Amino acid sequence: MHWKINNSEYLFKNHWLTLRADTCEKPDGAIIEPYYVYEFSDWVTAVPFTKDGKIIMIKQYRHALGDISIEIPGGCVDQGDTDLQTACARELLEETGYVFDSYKYLCKTSANPSTNNNLMHIFLAEGGKWQNVQQLDAGEDIEILLLSVDEVKGLLKENKIIQSMHVTALMYAFEKLKLIAF
Amino acid sequence: MHWKINNSEYLFKNHWLTLRADTCEKPDGAIIEPYYVYEFSDWVTAVPFTKDGKIIMIKQYRHALGDISIEIPGGCVDQGDTDLQTACARELLEETGYVFDSYKYLCKTSANPSTNNNLMHIFLAEGGKWQNVQQLDAGEDIEILLLSVDEVKGLLKENKIIQSMHVTALMYAFEKLKLIAF
Repeated sequence: MHWKINNSEYLFKNHWLTLRADTCEKPDGAIIEPYYVYEFSDWVTAVPFTKDGKIIMIKQYRHALGDISIEIPGGCVDQGDTDLQTACARELLEETGYVFDSYKYLCKTSANPSTNNNLMHIFLAEGGKWQNVQQLDAGEDIEILLLSVDEVKGLLKENKIIQSMHVTALMYAFEKLKLIAF
Repeated sequence: MHWKINNSEYLFKNHWLTLRADTCEKPDGAIIEPYYVYEFSDWVTAVPFTKDGKIIMIKQYRHALGDISIEIPGGCVDQGDTDLQTACARELLEETGYVFDSYKYLCKTSANPSTNNNLMHIFLAEGGKWQNVQQLDAGEDIEILLLSVDEVKGLLKENKIIQSMHVTALMYAFEKLKLIAF
């Protein structure tokens, strides 16, 4: 089922946007062109629990959708990150100011494998303790929400968590902790 | 928390790619530019059950990720679609050849609200009956899998369903049918 890439051209390659157009050949010889691929570095996120069992959610404006979104923290794997967990811990510290006793890898997911070349790696982070004020990038305004498991389940039931990778993360974290069974 | 758009420029606007670069102004007056937004029409998908309780999953090559993906059927809302359910039924018939007795709206989700301007609308489709051979677009090669609920739960547990909007859809469908509780 895999396609061959006969030609590949970058239309943009800058800090915020890497976009290429491929000419693809299917197994039956048919040519598909252009096929646009959005390139991103891999992403990391965690369902982060504080020591007293609250989930650290964040609330921020997301300009593409044009709306406020209730999410879990995370971000891009950077060049300097030695591994995925280090990248995740760095992002959590920057966005929430918390450090965590333990990380468990839960699963990987894709926002959309037909447009994006990257994966999101998802952790469960436990034993969170506040250490620092947030260290936010320009353009980031992040409000912290400390919510109980029941409050987060309520947000899920009411369809108030709109980012699909974060819904996925919460489901896998709740399954790991036996808070749901699937 | 909302941003103002001071300027907006389309870099691409064709059938497969609509990409704009915004100059944004935050509430504190800070300017963010460029902010790239991928525009798409809204998407529709369903967790589709046959009359005898199998879930109709599809398997296809996804070129951006460069891998085979096990998904549920769906696609874009087209100009000619009168409503979301009609769009969803059209996509399911094209991709699977099945028609359904009933549709229930479950929830909406976003692949990524920081990059995409659109939403995916998710239905539960029940009472599926095979009607036609698939009517696929150029570039679509879709293998049909008829799986039991337990088989799909197994795929979820093994992290074999990689598309986050589809994981979200399955969780909400299973919750609606009381096959999981969250």
